[in-house]
Amino acid sequence: MQHAFIVGVMGGARVGPEVAAEAYRLGRRIAEQGWVLLNGGRRAGVMDESARGALEAGGLTIGILPGEDRRDASPYIRIPICTGMGGARNNINVLSSDVVVACPGGAGTLSEIALALKNGKRVIVLGETDGDFPMRHLQGHHLIQARNAEEAVNHIRRLFFPDSPE
Amino acid sequence: MQHAFIVGVMGGARVGPEVAAEAYRLGRRIAEQGWVLLNGGRRAGVMDESARGALEAGGLTIGILPGEDRRDASPYIRIPICTGMGGARNNINVLSSDVVVACPGGAGTLSEIALALKNGKRVIVLGETDGDFPMRHLQGHHLIQARNAEEAVNHIRRLFFPDSPE
Amino acid sequence: MQHAFIVGVMGGARVGPEVAAEAYRLGRRIAEQGWVLLNGGRRAGVMDESARGALEAGGLTIGILPGEDRRDASPYIRIPICTGMGGARNNINVLSSDVVVACPGGAGTLSEIALALKNGKRVIVLGETDGDFPMRHLQGHHLIQARNAEEAVNHIRRLFFPDSPE
Amino acid sequence: MQHAFIVGVMGGARVGPEVAAEAYRLGRRIAEQGWVLLNGGRRAGVMDESARGALEAGGLTIGILPGEDRRDASPYIRIPICTGMGGARNNINVLSSDVVVACPGGAGTLSEIALALKNGKRVIVLGETDGDFPMRHLQGHHLIQARNAEEAVNHIRRLFFPDSPE
Repeated sequence: MQHAFIVGVMGGARVGPEVAAEAYRLGRRIAEQGWVLLNGGRRAGVMDESARGALEAGGLTIGILPGEDRRDASPYIRIPICTGMGGARNNINVLSSDVVVACPGGAGTLSEIALALKNGKRVIVLGETDGDFPMRHLQGHHLIQARNAEEAVNHIRRLFFPDSPE
Repeated sequence: MQHAFIVGVMGGARVGPEVAAEAYRLGRRIAEQGWVLLNGGRRAGVMDESARGALEAGGLTIGILPGEDRRDASPYIRIPICTGMGGARNNINVLSSDVVVACPGGAGTLSEIALALKNGKRVIVLGETDGDFPMRHLQGHHLIQARNAEEAVNHIRRLFFPDSPE
Repeated sequence: MQHAFIVGVMGGARVGPEVAAEAYRLGRRIAEQGWVLLNGGRRAGVMDESARGALEAGGLTIGILPGEDRRDASPYIRIPICTGMGGARNNINVLSSDVVVACPGGAGTLSEIALALKNGKRVIVLGETDGDFPMRHLQGHHLIQARNAEEAVNHIRRLFFPDSPE
Repeated sequence: MQHAFIVGVMGGARVGPEVAAEAYRLGRRIAEQGWVLLNGGRRAGVMDESARGALEAGGLTIGILPGEDRRDASPYIRIPICTGMGGARNNINVLSSDVVVACPGGAGTLSEIALALKNGKRVIVLGETDGDFPMRHLQGHHLIQARNAEEAVNHIRRLFFPDSPE
């Protein structure tokens, strides 16, 4: 028996409709591959939309919540993990993910990218990063660019399941 | 859509064959009810056996690991959550559980019982407690005694699903 | 150069006047020995009183706060450490203490005693324990009884500074 | 009675001699102001050198350690706080600091800058940042540039003690 393959999806709590739509597609594509989606669990932004996409496609969704109360979880999270640790839970998010996909976001998302790299995790950056993210300065680490959800999922397939059929 | 109902199973990493067998039965019975099993995730004692029982009965198993590496997880854990927090992860175990079942164990298990009570969670104590656990002194809190796995599960049904058929 | 010797003082947030007075005396005695006092940092009960005693005797006081905001700290805490981790910070309290003195308290204090024992720390239990604390069941571990602050400090001296003059 | 004013010093565990020398000077200058120095507590790089500077100037040094064992602390740390939380302790570092000074470093330091900004803390970036740090992309937040330790301390004085004499 094997552990599930877990994809961590990070990104902002306040995002525009295009980022939200891409997060939803990303959640769907992750679930369609049979992978588990893990995120920060709140009912906002990339967390909410990626969980909705995964759940509607029949996937399993794990939310690592900053607070102590599961009622703060997105309704699309099947398994709310209540840490009560606030922002320190970001480290759990990255440690528990086989690979991290970073959607656009702010300082919280940046802390997760940095923690992921520090822990040797592969990070796939989804979408335009100019101005928002300091990606250029972290090259040399395992940062990988993807223009959309489809590309992000293809990167994960090539990296972790190189022998599986397309 | 609703969050899953999560039963936290606590207990020692080193236990005798009778406690191990009861932990296995408890895991099975939890999964048969359609509930999710959550525990400390390591490949030892009550953690390993309760996860094995739940997984063999077709259930979902979540392990909240003290370390940073999922390879330390029990092979019967489907979703390893790597906290890297050591014993401080005990607080996450209880916060994330709808109800806690405490099998025999040592100081670590006692800390989880205490943290569960502090957070207002119901705690069901499984098995003989004389000598091992200070249950008597915590009465008045939500401690409930159960002689075996069957009784523990029946307590949970009465407390959380009073209207469901036996 | 050496690290300071740190005495962790645990105990309830709501205690009667006798326990409060003994916590104050304990804080004073710890500071008079030149030791650093560490506790949970809140402005309540044993935390507040033991910090007041230590500070008034010229000692250094460290508070490991559950929240993110130092304004919640007792005014007698010189160094507030803001964890934002809630009850999970109890593990930091015991890991950071050379020795733990447990004053009367509830489930939170019990969790700290259990975590201290799990981490191999010496625990000195101050005051009457019948009814409140399950001390008897944890004997065999490093639990030591003390009737008052003076006795608690003498125990620490004998254990950690056996060669110093009385 | 008031809490101490705490300056958090972040930065790499592996740094060149120039960065080490500046970290030492920064520690000295912080202590000379009567402020408490807080850092990650390990015996390496910016942590070790800034603590050495502060301690040699008669200051108080607090180290928030990733591990469970104070013997891993820098010998220049007077108060080792053992978190046992690994990289998640970075959040405690920033929450416990009145202001953060970021010396050159890698992904771990970047995560602390991001977490500090997320928590509304002022961050002073010391030294050249081209190539290492993504400072430019985080402008608009409370990032402040300083060329050396002296400038960093002057920034803190102007921000937090505007009425004190030079």
